[in-house]
Amino acid sequence: MITDRLKAWAYLSRVVEGPSAHLQALLKQGRDPEAIAHAVKHREPWIGDLLRETLSRYEWDVAQQDLEQILALGGRLITPEDREWPATELDHAFGFAASGMSDHVRTYQDDAVPPHALWVRGGDLRSLTAQAVALVGTRAVSQYGREVTALIVDNLVPHQWTIISGGALGVDTVAHTTALRAGGSTVVVAACGLDRSYPAHNRALFEEIVSRSGAIVTEYPPGTPPQRHRFLTRNRLVAALSQGTVVTEAAWRSGALNTLSWCAGLGRVAMAVPGPVTTAGSLGCHERIRNGHAQMVCSGDEIRSLLGAIGGMDAQEQYELNFAANPIQGLSRNELRVYDALGRHPREAAEVATETGLTLALVIHLLVDLNSRGLVAREGVRWVRIAEQGAGAGGDTGGG
Amino acid sequence: MITDRLKAWAYLSRVVEGPSAHLQALLKQGRDPEAIAHAVKHREPWIGDLLRETLSRYEWDVAQQDLEQILALGGRLITPEDREWPATELDHAFGFAASGMSDHVRTYQDDAVPPHALWVRGGDLRSLTAQAVALVGTRAVSQYGREVTALIVDNLVPHQWTIISGGALGVDTVAHTTALRAGGSTVVVAACGLDRSYPAHNRALFEEIVSRSGAIVTEYPPGTPPQRHRFLTRNRLVAALSQGTVVTEAAWRSGALNTLSWCAGLGRVAMAVPGPVTTAGSLGCHERIRNGHAQMVCSGDEIRSLLGAIGGMDAQEQYELNFAANPIQGLSRNELRVYDALGRHPREAAEVATETGLTLALVIHLLVDLNSRGLVAREGVRWVRIAEQGAGAGGDTGGG
Repeated sequence: MITDRLKAWAYLSRVVEGPSAHLQALLKQGRDPEAIAHAVKHREPWIGDLLRETLSRYEWDVAQQDLEQILALGGRLITPEDREWPATELDHAFGFAASGMSDHVRTYQDDAVPPHALWVRGGDLRSLTAQAVALVGTRAVSQYGREVTALIVDNLVPHQWTIISGGALGVDTVAHTTALRAGGSTVVVAACGLDRSYPAHNRALFEEIVSRSGAIVTEYPPGTPPQRHRFLTRNRLVAALSQGTVVTEAAWRSGALNTLSWCAGLGRVAMAVPGPVTTAGSLGCHERIRNGHAQMVCSGDEIRSLLGAIGGMDAQEQYELNFAANPIQGLSRNELRVYDALGRHPREAAEVATETGLTLALVIHLLVDLNSRGLVAREGVRWVRIAEQGAGAGGDTGGG
Repeated sequence: MITDRLKAWAYLSRVVEGPSAHLQALLKQGRDPEAIAHAVKHREPWIGDLLRETLSRYEWDVAQQDLEQILALGGRLITPEDREWPATELDHAFGFAASGMSDHVRTYQDDAVPPHALWVRGGDLRSLTAQAVALVGTRAVSQYGREVTALIVDNLVPHQWTIISGGALGVDTVAHTTALRAGGSTVVVAACGLDRSYPAHNRALFEEIVSRSGAIVTEYPPGTPPQRHRFLTRNRLVAALSQGTVVTEAAWRSGALNTLSWCAGLGRVAMAVPGPVTTAGSLGCHERIRNGHAQMVCSGDEIRSLLGAIGGMDAQEQYELNFAANPIQGLSRNELRVYDALGRHPREAAEVATETGLTLALVIHLLVDLNSRGLVAREGVRWVRIAEQGAGAGGDTGGG
């Protein structure tokens, strides 16, 4: 059903090309999306920088047509107000980015912002990305790259990992195709409107992915052509929607390395597969491993083990969490270490990492998590504990 | 010329199978090798544990024959008293081992001792090891392993690096052979007496190495058969005589990984080359890289750059050193940082590393160097500055 509210979102998706820090700031302030859309359309000054950002497009009000077109394609527009919105993944990723840890994010700060809406065809995006790993790599894939990519996908799929990639020729295509053949789920993050297929060669593959409970997703409304800057922007979503990114084959300056930089900048686990040093095919992978910008992985087992180690809970912890009397008692061991390290005075994540002996990436991951549960708050680049309201340790005896 | 003194060393080489911590301790106390040899032969109690160590062999006095045999082979016995003795390399390596940093060294403590004498055929060992890198790997070498090993040797040889290896089939043989073909120098460290060729298949190769100014060297007197424990002991010498060890191809549990452990335990640069993850050939290399026990290298350029970075001096530093008014002024920047971090109270190398911001390996390397120049002393696992005798900073104005 096309509601006025959905049309407001569709309008914003059309006239504000994501990502937009200005639009995100307004939404974060609690401004209503319909009010923002109205203000853009009628040039109301309170939306500040968003006025300038929408100067050339604000009259392009085709929300009804866009929504009808996506419906005709069997798709939908999803927004932060939808249950299907991959909120956990996006909050973690862009929460980490906001902590300002990464050179890459500082360089591409304008892109270090979540999408404001996503156009989707296929399965439920939140479920698909709940346990997902991105496999990316060169378009000029070698026989070795094919074998490695397929080997890894074949290992991950039986453990219910969704394979995310960019739908490009080469490694991306091998990743998607192998996932389908193995009976797994796979998600394409596209750099163009969903009425288009890019590359055209993969049209049938994309249709099969959609029909087999996978998904194809994009920030761009129907009709948007793939352009160079959109590939780079799209790469951040590939990284943000997965718990880690693996480059299986990439020579020097491969675009896949850009996705890997995003992955690290978004606090995800950046991984690369080594290969023969007698050809140039794995040069990019080796460079990232050598610089310490990616962890070396040689198999799906290693990938799962690395991803499992980040913020994961064992069964006992999960059990205790489910039966916890209050939110503090419900914290996992590592969460508690981070929570206890925070006092009433704000501290930077790096200090917490030093005090707890956890890695910085894990600390930030847990802080973002605690934040989403209302237990800690962020003040700039620092974090502070939120006062416990009658939730003192061992507090089931009442009183207070 | 076969002197009595040389016969004493040859006798000790025969009846005390190296390495021997007890013999080293006596030599370090300044005991004369002829007196030690006499004491072994006549069972004098002052040599302590060495009595027990030589119980089954002390009557085996064939020094004259051993020396005649090595001369007949065109070889010689060298000792710490010879100019040709690779003192710098051995001091650094076993000085580092004595600092107790390495688990491997703690496990194989009995072997973490320099040789007391070396039997050599071929070129001058000190010159050959002044700039040397060890290339080792699996006997079951693949086509990829052959290519990688040859590529690296072909890069190193024109830069005057000597290639050291163990003379085994597979990677070792490719390393030696390629070095010869490229017109370079190569050294075989053997696990048996030099009258033998092991493996027999490489007899002609070893002869060619000797005839082309390379060398074959061993701790073992003529007639000693290659035995399993001697291969492991030999591996430490491969690592000690080179500035770094590279494993070019090694599957799980390859013996080459033992050499790599020695390399790290002796404060040398441990390196491994990645390879395809679709076969098991490079599993051992990947494991060491993943654990951080070896640095990943993909080319000879990278190897030279890593080795050049350890304790190297640039031309300006070398110039200043040559014209220095006193030993302190003659220190390189990094040496000065380490020296300045030491006070009158002994400190562990790890503290110095933290204070100077240098890697622990480099700090220990420099400490051993400063020690050999009489500027610092070791007390157990700690280091202390030796009082400057009239060599105060800027001290050319005299006074005291």
